[in-house]
Amino acid sequence: MTLRDVAQLAGVSLSTASKALNGRTDVHPETRRRVLDTAERLSFKANSSARALHTGRTGTLGLITNDLEGRFSIPILMGAEDAAGAGEMSIFLCDAREDAIRESYHLRALLSRQVDGLIIVGSRTDPRPSLGHELPVPVVYAYAPSDSPEDLSVVPDNVAGGRAAVEHLVSLGRRRIAHIAGDRSWVAARDRVDGVHDYLTEQGLELAGGRPHYGTWSEGWGRGAVRAVIEATPDVDAIVCGSDQIARGVLEGLKGLGRRVPEDVALVSFDNWEPFARGSVPQLTSVDMNFEAMGRRAAQKLFAAMSGKVEQGVLTQPCRLVVRGSSIQGA
Amino acid sequence: MTLRDVAQLAGVSLSTASKALNGRTDVHPETRRRVLDTAERLSFKANSSARALHTGRTGTLGLITNDLEGRFSIPILMGAEDAAGAGEMSIFLCDAREDAIRESYHLRALLSRQVDGLIIVGSRTDPRPSLGHELPVPVVYAYAPSDSPEDLSVVPDNVAGGRAAVEHLVSLGRRRIAHIAGDRSWVAARDRVDGVHDYLTEQGLELAGGRPHYGTWSEGWGRGAVRAVIEATPDVDAIVCGSDQIARGVLEGLKGLGRRVPEDVALVSFDNWEPFARGSVPQLTSVDMNFEAMGRRAAQKLFAAMSGKVEQGVLTQPCRLVVRGSSIQGA
Repeated sequence: MTLRDVAQLAGVSLSTASKALNGRTDVHPETRRRVLDTAERLSFKANSSARALHTGRTGTLGLITNDLEGRFSIPILMGAEDAAGAGEMSIFLCDAREDAIRESYHLRALLSRQVDGLIIVGSRTDPRPSLGHELPVPVVYAYAPSDSPEDLSVVPDNVAGGRAAVEHLVSLGRRRIAHIAGDRSWVAARDRVDGVHDYLTEQGLELAGGRPHYGTWSEGWGRGAVRAVIEATPDVDAIVCGSDQIARGVLEGLKGLGRRVPEDVALVSFDNWEPFARGSVPQLTSVDMNFEAMGRRAAQKLFAAMSGKVEQGVLTQPCRLVVRGSSIQGA
Repeated sequence: MTLRDVAQLAGVSLSTASKALNGRTDVHPETRRRVLDTAERLSFKANSSARALHTGRTGTLGLITNDLEGRFSIPILMGAEDAAGAGEMSIFLCDAREDAIRESYHLRALLSRQVDGLIIVGSRTDPRPSLGHELPVPVVYAYAPSDSPEDLSVVPDNVAGGRAAVEHLVSLGRRRIAHIAGDRSWVAARDRVDGVHDYLTEQGLELAGGRPHYGTWSEGWGRGAVRAVIEATPDVDAIVCGSDQIARGVLEGLKGLGRRVPEDVALVSFDNWEPFARGSVPQLTSVDMNFEAMGRRAAQKLFAAMSGKVEQGVLTQPCRLVVRGSSIQGA
């Protein structure tokens, strides 16, 4: 940074810039403030650019999200920050709102600030278009996989989640298990159904009623569907619910029908979204998709790519079952 | 951007850089890729810097949030983006997790990328420490006000929210109104209580039981508190609930006690957090704190400050009542 840079950017003469920086009083206070501000900005920038030249890194990642509620992207952001150690890394999150033009604008803005890498977070686990392979920094896709096999993606393992949910219920001795699932048009709903189905088949069992019940990701769906399930298969002793919200509706419906949870009917759901999973009586046993771990892993893969270790393909992030009172009394 | 810049940053000779950029084949593919990447990065940066010199702006704001769930910050972010028109502005969100060191690190990272202004979002409406008045760009505080009267803050109007909630109930003919509030240590809880109290006093009324019931921001608190309220004042005909989550607990508790909502007891809550407010039967009448409008206003005030129109003090953002079935049957 030279005096000339400061003077030019602040729009003053060299001598005015010099006076201002040396604290002389024969400069208008506003002019002085402008010169000092400019110097500070250039200094920040010089520091940051010098660091970038030295290490090849700026200590900054970009995260573009399409998750309008922040439910996935905030924990993924926190996990990614933790991967770098506290205070070592800033991550800039931009919200693209599932709009390709907005996404491309944010992408350009982040690249022009020379971020070291990009994490792209989708709103659902269905594949999304690749950003291509001409970007100047590495990219990792999280939650939603890229549709290009040349990209690297980290996604939740919903099939394993479905297995874990129903394995837990079978281990508790439940055998007449129904599945009130989410929206069939989402890969996540179908993956969970596949996991449930695979495990039951391996055990020589099948779903109560012979098939899953697809609907929407809402309490209202759970509330209505459970009446139909109990009517069709009154001896049901467990229900796998496609999300915590669905499970809240199922729980309320069962209470209305005089069925005790978990004594008569045990429940397991997905997401472990705490406001819902821990707000009910009993609290919900739920499969946590480990978003923070997904964010950490995405960031670690970015760091590896920056060091030249480039990977491709889709990595699945293991989930974990959080056991509470809806499946085991008093848990 | 000169060829020398590219060669230097890519760590190659001038002639190698020239060959790579001209598509010659006598350069190792990896070297060629590195040179092209470097040129692209410098080009992005040159474009962005040129624009900054021309307009004095970079088209980028920073938003530092301390809201761990993203419930306030994502809608505030979206509102701020909308203030600039689609595609005109990128906002970089950083998550400080209520940690001053992390906040200062993000602040430095954003300033080094020459953002045009900063929005600082708190996790609650209690005042927070000012970032001071030496920053090179304007700052607006949103949700949590700065503790310095020289700063500009935009905060939700929780007192008006409390008034709106109870005014609605009084307008429906309810007179024996209880208030199951949130955590007393939060300014938001006390502000809502003040608004409820002020309006009732103006109408010559007082709270059923003579005082509000402070607790926690949870369903469990609502569920337990409503039993005590009904026991102490069995003729209660309406309850103002400190949040949607509290209201969900109150609703469940009332059903358990055989009271119909809204016929016997009408409910109004705060936040209009849709997964909770719209998941129940009946759905919740709730005071929406207008986070998107708050974000738009914060951004508009930043743009004004960039143009030299600097304001100070605390602006309150009006709220709006969203009427649903918990206060008016069939609404």
